[in-house]
Amino acid sequence: MARTPHKNEFQRIATYLAPLTAAAPGAFGLLDDAAVIETPAGQSTVVTTDTMVEGVHYVGDEAPSLIARKLLRVNLSDLAAMGARPSAYTLNLALPESVSDAWLADFTEGLRLDQTSYGISLIGGDSVATPGPATLTITAFGDAAEGEVLRRAGARAGDGLYVSGTIGDGALGLLVLRGEIGGLDAIARDELVDRYRLPRPRSALGVGLVGTAHAAADISDGLVADLGHVASASGLAAEIDLACIPLSSAAGAALDHDSDLWPTVLAGGDDYELVFAAPETATLDELSAHSETPITRIGEFRTGTGVTVMGDGVPMVLDRAGYRHG
Amino acid sequence: MARTPHKNEFQRIATYLAPLTAAAPGAFGLLDDAAVIETPAGQSTVVTTDTMVEGVHYVGDEAPSLIARKLLRVNLSDLAAMGARPSAYTLNLALPESVSDAWLADFTEGLRLDQTSYGISLIGGDSVATPGPATLTITAFGDAAEGEVLRRAGARAGDGLYVSGTIGDGALGLLVLRGEIGGLDAIARDELVDRYRLPRPRSALGVGLVGTAHAAADISDGLVADLGHVASASGLAAEIDLACIPLSSAAGAALDHDSDLWPTVLAGGDDYELVFAAPETATLDELSAHSETPITRIGEFRTGTGVTVMGDGVPMVLDRAGYRHG
Repeated sequence: MARTPHKNEFQRIATYLAPLTAAAPGAFGLLDDAAVIETPAGQSTVVTTDTMVEGVHYVGDEAPSLIARKLLRVNLSDLAAMGARPSAYTLNLALPESVSDAWLADFTEGLRLDQTSYGISLIGGDSVATPGPATLTITAFGDAAEGEVLRRAGARAGDGLYVSGTIGDGALGLLVLRGEIGGLDAIARDELVDRYRLPRPRSALGVGLVGTAHAAADISDGLVADLGHVASASGLAAEIDLACIPLSSAAGAALDHDSDLWPTVLAGGDDYELVFAAPETATLDELSAHSETPITRIGEFRTGTGVTVMGDGVPMVLDRAGYRHG
Repeated sequence: MARTPHKNEFQRIATYLAPLTAAAPGAFGLLDDAAVIETPAGQSTVVTTDTMVEGVHYVGDEAPSLIARKLLRVNLSDLAAMGARPSAYTLNLALPESVSDAWLADFTEGLRLDQTSYGISLIGGDSVATPGPATLTITAFGDAAEGEVLRRAGARAGDGLYVSGTIGDGALGLLVLRGEIGGLDAIARDELVDRYRLPRPRSALGVGLVGTAHAAADISDGLVADLGHVASASGLAAEIDLACIPLSSAAGAALDHDSDLWPTVLAGGDDYELVFAAPETATLDELSAHSETPITRIGEFRTGTGVTVMGDGVPMVLDRAGYRHG
């Protein structure tokens, strides 16, 4: 798998990475030129991939296990948005020479934890040296019934507009890390940082929505942007009722202290919640039957284009200074 | 697919990458959160992945199209070694800001050329910025009949030992680029450099060997090392007859000029030929029936361990100074 690794890299692969393949016979213990993805009969394999660069997508002083789990989970969030059940992943490590065995041990321990949580296995990868920052790629695979993936296109006029969990925590958590947010106690700060560092991919919800939801996406670039992708792919407008947006108590406290944080909540990203369209007739109970994740109806899809946020019944305008009445 | 790309990155994805997905409906034009791999009924999906770093795996002043094609082809070579027919790939680009649109246009033109040659499509990826060197990952997918991939394990005592094409050209080509080789005319130099820069994955041969060959690997780390992996995975020894190793006329000329280049030929790597084990009863005609690539029997597998190179009937020893009679 790995091309011309150094002796030390062979050793690292055997010590830290091969054990992560123990439950995947198609990985051949990382000793072959390629791996076999096990796809159940009648299922399609769904694939997504994300790269994180030290100093760009993470600071570098985080616990390596958290870096690993975030990289894995942003991929699992993409699979959830497609309604695919995660099954396996490959890992490409471009690491500077300064990376120690202890770093790699903690990194792979993070992967091991999440493999157990999500029922997935490492099946392949590559390990190379780089003179630059650590550059980490995971490519994740999932199963979906043939022809039944959730797409961004497919919402219909009159569909309800839903999100999972709470919105804005990840982006606010990044502000906490930067020391750019005030008025929060230590517990609230920790909660927001935790949401930034450790996404909760909504795998069970995504799989459960197949057959009911008309369209879905995960919220990585921000609610307004990702909902905008669903609306435009579906040829529709989307209208959000600001008062309906589900907030954690920590995010609520932050907004109480400074309402200029609303644009961060609506457009900041790193939520890794699902935003989806479901028929008017679907009930909350039906939609959340397969998942413990709360879901909230925050608006609807209409004929037209664009995303509108309604505050007190009036369209709001997003500009640099924040949301305001239009 | 791409996480929080800049506006410019959205534009680049639409302009340069989305057109590469035109023949792959499961790519959804790179507009969804994930892609669907189309696997024919009764087939398994085989996956392999490689990362190349500017300044480590390529100099950086090569034609971008050649960098792209080498990255794609080293992956296709891994699929060939497993007997899988290439079908699709994902691409992760971590690019410094200095990378121009012209660079990306030429890079993707290289991919387009090879997509046509190998009947494959881009189906997904990620594009991020990096403060470090360009770091490029391709993950390639192929189809193989269920349970019928070629493995490194499986060679049997008495099996013939075969290679495809010619050995040593890639490693000698790298020496030409470094100005570390003499006695060659311009044509020979160009041929060797071309073999270094543009591997020829042996896809048709690999697929054709399924059901006949007992074990296979591609030669990326060098004949001795990769054959060593096949031998050790199979619990056997392998014996090479030096006089049987197929050489290009350029490699032959280089060795005539300087026999100290033998270790480079045998252990230098970057061949991207196949090395495989086939039963004693198999004929060259049978083994090469599905491919135009010449194959050569260079030795056999025996009980024991390790790889032995026989020169004039005497085992040779590889050391720093080169191969010599043991």
